[in-house]
Amino acid sequence: MSTPPLLPHVERMTGYVPGEQPRDPARIIKLNTNENPYPPSAKVAEAIGAALGDGRLRLYPDPTALRFREAVARRHGVSPEMVLAGNGSDDCLTILTRAFVGPGDVLAYPTPSYVLYRTLAEIQGARAVEVLFRPDWTIDPDDLAASGARLAFLANPNSPSGTAIPPGAVAELARRIDCPLVVDEAYGDFAGEDCIRLVSELENVVVTRTLSKGLSLAGLRIGYLIARPGLIDGLLKVKDSYNCDMLSLLGGSAALDDEDYTRSVRDRILATRARLAEAARSLGYTVPESHANFVWCEGGPPAEEIYESLKGRDILVRLMRYPGRPAGLRITVGTDEQIDRLLDAMREIVGGR
Amino acid sequence: MSTPPLLPHVERMTGYVPGEQPRDPARIIKLNTNENPYPPSAKVAEAIGAALGDGRLRLYPDPTALRFREAVARRHGVSPEMVLAGNGSDDCLTILTRAFVGPGDVLAYPTPSYVLYRTLAEIQGARAVEVLFRPDWTIDPDDLAASGARLAFLANPNSPSGTAIPPGAVAELARRIDCPLVVDEAYGDFAGEDCIRLVSELENVVVTRTLSKGLSLAGLRIGYLIARPGLIDGLLKVKDSYNCDMLSLLGGSAALDDEDYTRSVRDRILATRARLAEAARSLGYTVPESHANFVWCEGGPPAEEIYESLKGRDILVRLMRYPGRPAGLRITVGTDEQIDRLLDAMREIVGGR
Repeated sequence: MSTPPLLPHVERMTGYVPGEQPRDPARIIKLNTNENPYPPSAKVAEAIGAALGDGRLRLYPDPTALRFREAVARRHGVSPEMVLAGNGSDDCLTILTRAFVGPGDVLAYPTPSYVLYRTLAEIQGARAVEVLFRPDWTIDPDDLAASGARLAFLANPNSPSGTAIPPGAVAELARRIDCPLVVDEAYGDFAGEDCIRLVSELENVVVTRTLSKGLSLAGLRIGYLIARPGLIDGLLKVKDSYNCDMLSLLGGSAALDDEDYTRSVRDRILATRARLAEAARSLGYTVPESHANFVWCEGGPPAEEIYESLKGRDILVRLMRYPGRPAGLRITVGTDEQIDRLLDAMREIVGGR
Repeated sequence: MSTPPLLPHVERMTGYVPGEQPRDPARIIKLNTNENPYPPSAKVAEAIGAALGDGRLRLYPDPTALRFREAVARRHGVSPEMVLAGNGSDDCLTILTRAFVGPGDVLAYPTPSYVLYRTLAEIQGARAVEVLFRPDWTIDPDDLAASGARLAFLANPNSPSGTAIPPGAVAELARRIDCPLVVDEAYGDFAGEDCIRLVSELENVVVTRTLSKGLSLAGLRIGYLIARPGLIDGLLKVKDSYNCDMLSLLGGSAALDDEDYTRSVRDRILATRARLAEAARSLGYTVPESHANFVWCEGGPPAEEIYESLKGRDILVRLMRYPGRPAGLRITVGTDEQIDRLLDAMREIVGGR
């Protein structure tokens, strides 16, 4: 036989393209994939180091991730039965999609938002229905309710805008739709509020979280979702039995428990974020109030040109294009020094045009 | 709304149940999930330890897993373009299933074999067609050819039997079917031959491998598949972009490169395996020649009773039941000391009946 044909809907799709990962990150100021500029808690290396010494890696990890789920439960004041651990929150989103969305079904989400949602629908052969954010980055509940969705995603805070919809408005959205509403709180650690209490208040709210951003553990691939125990039982059937490795579970638990460190990193990032947003505005950009660890710059000096010039100076930001909008720049909040160098470069580029 | 309904085929399924993971493994002789009794290469801890010190975990891993794929390529004499890295080989099997098998399609495999194959079909809403092994654990190519499969799995060496089909016979199977044949070589490190050269010879052969067994890294969740570059491109669209974490990629690469250590562990296990098989036969069991790190015991003293009595003595083996066969015991090859204790216990139990 010749090369075996993939499923037609897989053949057709292009696949998700993650932000550029330069081979030599040390040389580059990397502000393009919303990594945390500060290292993870020192307790992570301690926990992982202890496991490295005793040969434990030869054993399978706990498929139920009990200790990790207990750490999540402590952090958010929920029960461990409400938690499912994932290989990053992307894995949680995949599990949810596979559990709820079949071929031809509708997966709905507001746009512009996390581009992966479309890919997740495409892999299932499902239909992605994109609901346009209003200009102020709020959502018309009627639009989402009319989508006929079997599953809805809401990145909150949203990327690329950095904006957040308050829990009360999220609850209204959830009440208006007839399917699960997954509140993707990948950036929740940088926001003032979260939607975790809604999981207990409303039958159809699920919250996903990652340790990649707020806890500086993008390299570990560890995240989780919070849902009602009955729903968790169903999702467990879909997840890979050993989806989280031993070191991620140990390191993740240690990071979750080190709340003081998490808070101090968060405080620094929020201070730098305010400064970055203000400076970007003074360069002519429209910058919505960010509740995440990045700022979204639209409508100022041409994004493509600034992106390229910055790249030429070894500063990597994310150029984002969405249909019907001018391109924009999504800039991760780095260290103060990195942001100083970025802003100097931007001012120089804009001044020299 | 009330609790959101899962997809009907997900609602119906029971989910895969992995082998028991005792909370307190130190107290127990654990011979039930085919973990390697020896620790991983010391180079694994070195490689991971180096990454822990410099805060690198805050960054995303390389989504293309280039360095790891290069290590795989070195080990097997293939090109890195023929390799896809997975979060364990289970992840590779999931990616393949999602790429080739849609709802109602047929996923075929011989049985008794790895129970996960059925679950993978069920999650997709696909139809699992099980082809019975002949009594000597070979396969009638006509049976597989008649299955109408969109994708076929062949665990080789097989679990629970430990038997292996030689590459020539695998090639014949592949030629007879009109879909990809995935040769699941999870236990390939303990076999005399492998099917990796078939990937270059035949368009429809894919080989999956794991570092869990032969390289003592079950805790890391790292595996890979080998296929033609054109097929890899298609599969990349389906995989999670960051499916492998940074520490697994680093540790996995280090383990792959430490060939002397891998060989010495393998030699020890093969010697113990021969002794275990012989002793089990002398207890009355039929034990097919094993090409894996476990032996399969059928037809001797009643498996349920032996399993329970061993468990009462803190020795965990795997009790396996398949339709139409008596229950059997799958016993992982442990250290010599563990196997001595197991055999003493089995002789005592059998003698006291």
